[in-house]
Amino acid sequence: MTEKVLASWKDGRVRQAILDFVHAATTPGAAFVDVADRIATFDNDGTLWVEQPLPPQFDFVFRIWEAEARTDPSLAARQPYKALIERDQAFFEGLAAQEPQVVSTLLEAFARSWAGTTPEEFEAQVREWMRTAKQPKLDVPYLELVYRPMLELFDLLRENRFRVFVCSGGGRDFMRVFAEETWGIPKENVIGSAAAYTYADGRLVRSHELLGDLNLGAGKPENIFAHTGRLPVLAGGNADVDIEMLRSARFALLVDHDDEQREFAYTKGAEASLAMAAELGWTVVSMKNDWTTVF
Amino acid sequence: MTEKVLASWKDGRVRQAILDFVHAATTPGAAFVDVADRIATFDNDGTLWVEQPLPPQFDFVFRIWEAEARTDPSLAARQPYKALIERDQAFFEGLAAQEPQVVSTLLEAFARSWAGTTPEEFEAQVREWMRTAKQPKLDVPYLELVYRPMLELFDLLRENRFRVFVCSGGGRDFMRVFAEETWGIPKENVIGSAAAYTYADGRLVRSHELLGDLNLGAGKPENIFAHTGRLPVLAGGNADVDIEMLRSARFALLVDHDDEQREFAYTKGAEASLAMAAELGWTVVSMKNDWTTVF
Repeated sequence: MTEKVLASWKDGRVRQAILDFVHAATTPGAAFVDVADRIATFDNDGTLWVEQPLPPQFDFVFRIWEAEARTDPSLAARQPYKALIERDQAFFEGLAAQEPQVVSTLLEAFARSWAGTTPEEFEAQVREWMRTAKQPKLDVPYLELVYRPMLELFDLLRENRFRVFVCSGGGRDFMRVFAEETWGIPKENVIGSAAAYTYADGRLVRSHELLGDLNLGAGKPENIFAHTGRLPVLAGGNADVDIEMLRSARFALLVDHDDEQREFAYTKGAEASLAMAAELGWTVVSMKNDWTTVF
Repeated sequence: MTEKVLASWKDGRVRQAILDFVHAATTPGAAFVDVADRIATFDNDGTLWVEQPLPPQFDFVFRIWEAEARTDPSLAARQPYKALIERDQAFFEGLAAQEPQVVSTLLEAFARSWAGTTPEEFEAQVREWMRTAKQPKLDVPYLELVYRPMLELFDLLRENRFRVFVCSGGGRDFMRVFAEETWGIPKENVIGSAAAYTYADGRLVRSHELLGDLNLGAGKPENIFAHTGRLPVLAGGNADVDIEMLRSARFALLVDHDDEQREFAYTKGAEASLAMAAELGWTVVSMKNDWTTVF
C-alpha cells in the first residue's frame, strides 16, 4: 500500500476518530480487540449508496411489478400496485416503519413475483436491472453510486483484519448479486431481509414465506448475532432503523446526508439516530464536510 | 508446509480421490472452481467427532436437565426428563427423525432451561461441561474426540482457498463456543439449529422460540444457501440427515463408522446414505481402513 488510507476523507476530526479507533483496536492496550472479535457491520441504503428518492431495490422491484400490472390490469386497483402507479411514496415509507398492513401487502406481492423461482433466475433479473436502470436525479447506473469513502473504509478495516459485513433491511439475495464485485465482500458476509428457500429434487426454489423478520431495528443486532455469533465492534449506518445496530457496537459511525450539491440533503428517517448520536457521542460523518469525493 | 497433507489418511483410493478433487478444482480446466465458489460444508456429530452413544451435546443438555429434575422433582414424570431418568434412548432418537411430539417436548425443555439467558451465560455453561465431562466409553473429554483426519482435510481445503463451514443439526451456539479453538473455523462459519435471540436494552437474550427449523435433511442445503448464498462444492457427512447436503455438493464424502476397535461400528441412521453413496458414487471413508489415526 503506497496509496493514502481513507484518501477520500478530509483530514479532520472524523477521519482522525476512525484512524484512532482502528489503531487502538489493533494495538496492545485497554482498547485492543482480538482478531476473532473484529467484526464490522454496515447498513447499505444511505450508508453505502444513494437511497433517494427510494432505495434502489425499489426501482428494481417496481419495474417488475409495473410489468406485471401491464400484463394483468386487475392488479392496478390493488396495493402495492395502486400506490406504485399513483407514485404514492408515503405508502412505501410504511415499510421502514414496519406498518403491518403495508408489510403484508408487499410480502404478498413479492411472493406473487418470485415464489417458485430459483436463485439463478433472480440473479439474472437483478443483473439486467444493474445493466439498464439509472438513478433518476444523477442519471447513472445505481452501482456507480456507491460511496467511495466507505469502500476505502472497508479497505482499511480489512487491512487491519476486521471482517466486514453488510447488514441491511434490503434484500439479502438482491445485495449478494453485486456484493463481491462492488464491495469486495463475500456473499456469506451479507445479512439482509430474505425469502425462505426450499430444497427439493436437487434444487433450491424460493417459497412464499419470509425467512424470519425484516432486518430492521432490533432485528439488525439479532441477525448479526445469529449470523456471526458476535455483536459488531464497529458499525456504520444512517437511519433510525440502524439505531440498535449502532448501539450494539463499540464504535458507531452515522452518515449524515447534508450534501444537496453532490448527493441529497435530508434528515427524514434519521431524526432519532442524529439525536442519539449527539447523546451517545457517535461519530457523525458529514458527507459535505468530511468527504472530498462522494462517488 | 513441510508436513505431508492428509497425513493421517492412508494412501489409497479415498485419499487420492480427495487430492484429485482439490487439484482439479484449483487447476484451470473443466473442473475448476472459482475461488468465490469454494465452499465446503461438514456435518459435526459423527463426521467431525464421536456421536455414540449419543451426540455429545446431549450429554451437556442432560446434565443440566438432571440438575433441574433434582431441584424440581415434579419434572421427573414429564418428558423429556422421564426418558432421561429412564435412559430411554429411543425417545431421543425421535429427534433425528423429527417426530413432532418429541421435537416440541424437547423445545419446551430447552426453553425452560435457557429462555432469558445471555450468550455469555450459555457459553460459561458449555465451557464448564467441556472442562469436566468425559465420553463414557473412551473416558476422555469430548473435545479430544475430534477426528484428526478431518482437521487435516480442513487444512488442505483452507490452503486451497476453500471456506470451510460446519453445518450440523446440533446447536449453533453450542458449537460456536469451541469452533475457533478446535476446528480453526470462525464462529460465523458455523450453521446449526438455534434459538432466536432478542436484542433489547443493549443486550441479547435468548427467547423461547427456535430460529427457523432444525438444521437437518433438506434444512441443511436450505440453511447453507441462506447463510452463504451458495451451495457447497464439497460436503462431508455420515448420516441420513446429511443426504440432501451431500447431494447438493459436487464432491460428497460419507464417513462410515466401521471401526469398533478405535471408535464405534454402526450403520444405524446411515442406511439410506450408504445406499445413496453406492448409487451416486460418493466417496465413502472407512474409518477403519482409510484413517491411520482417528484422534
